[in-house]
Amino acid sequence: VSKRIVVVGGLAAGPSAASKAARTNGSASVVLLEKSPHTSYGICEIPYFISGEVDGSRLVSYTPDALKERKQVDARAHHLVEEISPGKRFVSVRNLKTGKTNQEYYDRLILATGARSKRLNVEGEDARNLFFVRWLDDAYQLKTYLQEEKPKTAVVIGAGYVGLEMTEALTRCGLQVTVLHKSSLPLSYMEHEVRERIRSIIDGQGVQFHGMVRTEGFVLGRDRKVTHVVTSEGTFDCDLVIECVGVEPQTELATAVGIRTGSFGGILADQRQETNIDNILAAGDCCEVRNIINKKMMYLPLATISSKTGWVAGENAAGGNAVFRGAIRAIAIRVFGLEVIQVGISSEEARDSGFDVVVDSITAWSKVGIMPGATKLTVVTIADRKSKRLLGANIYGSEGAVLRGNTLAVAIQQGISVDDIQQWDLAYSPPFTPLWDPILVAANSLRKKL
Amino acid sequence: VSKRIVVVGGLAAGPSAASKAARTNGSASVVLLEKSPHTSYGICEIPYFISGEVDGSRLVSYTPDALKERKQVDARAHHLVEEISPGKRFVSVRNLKTGKTNQEYYDRLILATGARSKRLNVEGEDARNLFFVRWLDDAYQLKTYLQEEKPKTAVVIGAGYVGLEMTEALTRCGLQVTVLHKSSLPLSYMEHEVRERIRSIIDGQGVQFHGMVRTEGFVLGRDRKVTHVVTSEGTFDCDLVIECVGVEPQTELATAVGIRTGSFGGILADQRQETNIDNILAAGDCCEVRNIINKKMMYLPLATISSKTGWVAGENAAGGNAVFRGAIRAIAIRVFGLEVIQVGISSEEARDSGFDVVVDSITAWSKVGIMPGATKLTVVTIADRKSKRLLGANIYGSEGAVLRGNTLAVAIQQGISVDDIQQWDLAYSPPFTPLWDPILVAANSLRKKL
Repeated sequence: VSKRIVVVGGLAAGPSAASKAARTNGSASVVLLEKSPHTSYGICEIPYFISGEVDGSRLVSYTPDALKERKQVDARAHHLVEEISPGKRFVSVRNLKTGKTNQEYYDRLILATGARSKRLNVEGEDARNLFFVRWLDDAYQLKTYLQEEKPKTAVVIGAGYVGLEMTEALTRCGLQVTVLHKSSLPLSYMEHEVRERIRSIIDGQGVQFHGMVRTEGFVLGRDRKVTHVVTSEGTFDCDLVIECVGVEPQTELATAVGIRTGSFGGILADQRQETNIDNILAAGDCCEVRNIINKKMMYLPLATISSKTGWVAGENAAGGNAVFRGAIRAIAIRVFGLEVIQVGISSEEARDSGFDVVVDSITAWSKVGIMPGATKLTVVTIADRKSKRLLGANIYGSEGAVLRGNTLAVAIQQGISVDDIQQWDLAYSPPFTPLWDPILVAANSLRKKL
Repeated sequence: VSKRIVVVGGLAAGPSAASKAARTNGSASVVLLEKSPHTSYGICEIPYFISGEVDGSRLVSYTPDALKERKQVDARAHHLVEEISPGKRFVSVRNLKTGKTNQEYYDRLILATGARSKRLNVEGEDARNLFFVRWLDDAYQLKTYLQEEKPKTAVVIGAGYVGLEMTEALTRCGLQVTVLHKSSLPLSYMEHEVRERIRSIIDGQGVQFHGMVRTEGFVLGRDRKVTHVVTSEGTFDCDLVIECVGVEPQTELATAVGIRTGSFGGILADQRQETNIDNILAAGDCCEVRNIINKKMMYLPLATISSKTGWVAGENAAGGNAVFRGAIRAIAIRVFGLEVIQVGISSEEARDSGFDVVVDSITAWSKVGIMPGATKLTVVTIADRKSKRLLGANIYGSEGAVLRGNTLAVAIQQGISVDDIQQWDLAYSPPFTPLWDPILVAANSLRKKL
């Protein structure tokens, strides 16, 4: 049976789902509808485009034409889906170039409508020198603004990972950056000592970090440019504002037809990425996701999860039988010279989830200490005393932190005990790893506390 | 009950066992006897000392005095154990400085007698410019020879990992190196395509590699220096010879009292590192080790296993209850600019062990491809079709190979299926890892063949 599969959304989960559907069922007709001019590009690379490390022309992985030719997906940019008719199984689509509307029938519909930037909803937020970092056009506009107007100072609102990446990018561009953050330290979910270390790293780069700040509005000059950011802790002058206060799922299409959403506002899909409405699946940043460790739903808009849930939705829409098992939260970030990774749940989340939490922290050589360039890593581990399972870990250091974090990510999602980790047979080679890898040092230290 | 624990051997497993015993039972009296002047040093760092990357004065981790002061181990260098009397529980020890012999009584004896370099047993092997790479004094003598006699050409016999590391070290020192190897390609246990890649890397550095060569003898000049190496494939001129043809367990003390050894000549200890003779344990390179994957015994003289089995022996000798679960073989090596790692069993071993073997190979970006300095990794995977378990992997590339190999090492020893690996939630961050980590790309590709 040949099938018609319609995918709404062309950024990450959408192309992943559409490509997988076309691969799974070669006779299926797969249509992808995207409202913007762009499909399949790397949001996560935007800070590196701004910093000048990445060429802007290479941010797009697959244009609509490439999706057609190389993935057998009928991808259409400038196509806005305005409504779903689940009974008659069609979507109403407006061609934003011609203004015309038509109906696209589907056997299976995949919603990959993504997330949008949260806004502060304060005065002056539409200023000409205030940017969000979400869509490719945001990035191009910001890059042009930097090149043409040569701002000297910037305020970054929000010190989540995107805020920190943008802080680094703008600092690399020579701007004096001030970071305003709602909490006392950057990032959430990481352990206190790691957040303190990140703060000290950005301080050391001349960034002005202000914690416990509520942004109340923007004072605009005559040319619609912010001149001052008004906050609970005073006003801050600047030539440029970047707002990075998080994202929220775009679910209007879904909720209009009764698709269930969760407490974070994201679509609740099952392990097959199917929604509660027949023949409609969902994937990516418009969905909530189950945490493998504490079984709770979370909202985790990450490209890794988008592509995985996209695959699962695409395969199932095309008649396959794939399952998405959930996520642990695995986030890595470069903070100037520091590699930082967080995997699994935080000690606070672990306590809230009822685990008998043990936290430990060690510092150990990343490679053999007497080798040239050897540096130290800090490994913070979070475990459950009762099951002796590893629940989470943070690692930071100049090198070798992220990939080791991924190794601990495996232990966390596979439910491996700290006793097992301590016994792991890992390679040792002076230029790369010490006799006792920091992971083993961490497991051994943690084990003594369990 | 206070205990007297005697450890024979002071290189890797011995100090590990002795320190652990002293930590486990603070009232125990722990004596370590080492025949050479040196204790607790890094054999694995010797090539990096020769290359000039590591300061020779830093090769020793713990001198006998440091073991005394910091580890509460009564460590005695220049003490050769000549005989064990298991009935009366003492060892006969000769003080090599005074020539006197005395008896050291024990409640528990730990044999950590290590391994010695294999020899070719051909004419001229005791030449003044022929070196083995095993003991610290070998290294110091070689370094002195290089500095004083300034050899221009070297022949390295054996292209195992030590041979390759020495080849790189001598090349870095400016010598023209010829490698003579018994097989057609360097290294064993790695997959054919990886061995070919390593060969092409060393070729590219100007090293002359000759495979399928049997060394038959050395022609010496008047000053007891090798001038030519005589082989099955002709003679090779040189100013210096390094022999790296493997090591063998030193078990004379053990076999003299009836301690069982295996088919590789190594001591057979149980999971508690206890031998078949009451109150005698063994650890390190004098022992064979069980392979976790195929359950076969293997001889695997690696520092990682020495330190782990040392810990287990030390803890148990002191009244603890530790278990060594075995090893998978995890070996990493730098070959000039290339990181190479091999974990688990080879496809050949897997076939010999009765697995229904599937081998796959992929190439993928180590970090996001458009980031500056992005390079590709090759991941070769070996799996069992029936259980879908990963059995082994080889990874090589300019960066990020070794630590990813360690992540796959975890999958191999924990018996994780390829289906599970493909679902792993791993971090993605452009400077460090791509959206689909090479591990996931490899698992996805391998999965299609299962």
